[in-house]
Amino acid sequence: MKQERGALTRSHLIAVAGVEFDRNGYDGTSFSRLSRSAGVSIGALTFHFSAKAELASAVEESGRSATRAVVEDITARGAGTALDTVSALILGLGRLIEADAVVRAAARLGQERAGAGPEWCGCWLPEVRALLGQAVEQGQVRPDVDPRPVALLAAHLMGGTVARVRQGRSRRPGAAVVELRELWRIVCRGIAAPQELVEV
Amino acid sequence: MKQERGALTRSHLIAVAGVEFDRNGYDGTSFSRLSRSAGVSIGALTFHFSAKAELASAVEESGRSATRAVVEDITARGAGTALDTVSALILGLGRLIEADAVVRAAARLGQERAGAGPEWCGCWLPEVRALLGQAVEQGQVRPDVDPRPVALLAAHLMGGTVARVRQGRSRRPGAAVVELRELWRIVCRGIAAPQELVEV
Repeated sequence: MKQERGALTRSHLIAVAGVEFDRNGYDGTSFSRLSRSAGVSIGALTFHFSAKAELASAVEESGRSATRAVVEDITARGAGTALDTVSALILGLGRLIEADAVVRAAARLGQERAGAGPEWCGCWLPEVRALLGQAVEQGQVRPDVDPRPVALLAAHLMGGTVARVRQGRSRRPGAAVVELRELWRIVCRGIAAPQELVEV
Repeated sequence: MKQERGALTRSHLIAVAGVEFDRNGYDGTSFSRLSRSAGVSIGALTFHFSAKAELASAVEESGRSATRAVVEDITARGAGTALDTVSALILGLGRLIEADAVVRAAARLGQERAGAGPEWCGCWLPEVRALLGQAVEQGQVRPDVDPRPVALLAAHLMGGTVARVRQGRSRRPGAAVVELRELWRIVCRGIAAPQELVEV
């Protein structure tokens, strides 16, 4: 029972810290602010996480874990062609970014604390790159397209989406995904083989 | 003479603060750290800028001013069609981002201190949007393309380029621009009218 309550507190702290780190970044978030936002004492906070860095690492790991789950789910389901799966991944990640501050925090902290742990992009970018390679081989994407810059473009779109949601630019629920779909459609038109119908 | 030295110190402080704010963000940069990096006393620093917020605003204004100069130069020269001018603008901004930490700091601070002043994107995004509108009217861009999402895509590319340069991902001089050109070429293929040769 005690252990269960401990686990609940831990996940509560990670969720609260996700919101704070997403909004204010690593340097803009203090331990005392985190304890206030979570409604726990500094003592209770340090019982679970000895320092801000440890809590930030837990937030990053939680965000990466949620991201990997979405990637695995979408690739396991298979959305049609390899290019369709890439599109489903991009939009699935957009939905996750919009819904989950811990994921946005993981993306932000991964840049601000580069080297402190695996990067958030590492959870999904290799999969997107591999699928784009398959899409080239299978003729859904033009043969002269290099998957690497397309994957980098997808990473820039994701980073931009994180920033837009953080700044409240896409306020209505789902607006960020609608926006992302429109941008990804432009990219698809730029890479798809002429005979491929681009339906994103 | 005294005034001239004052102006030199001021621009030196802005340049040094640009590097610090670009690397460490607003919250990660302290006034005492800035004085150390600039090699001046806190007293000398506060003589020019009474607080960190004032120095950050000066960095943002300096970065916006450098950006406006590049935009004016490129649009005045005229690179061919409206779409060619957009491409020249995108690459010109990429070069500026790569060369100038103050510009990168302006882009970062504009997001971190949203509302504290005009945003960095405001220096170039309206111009890109207007030129894309002209490119649609003049038939360089497909008539079904909406300039707004394309401009947003350009903003995401720019934000991604700022982050890549900051993280030292594009270490060789000019590498960030080579990368950006490749990404922008994909976007151009996605929006250009079929008869238009896309030469970025």
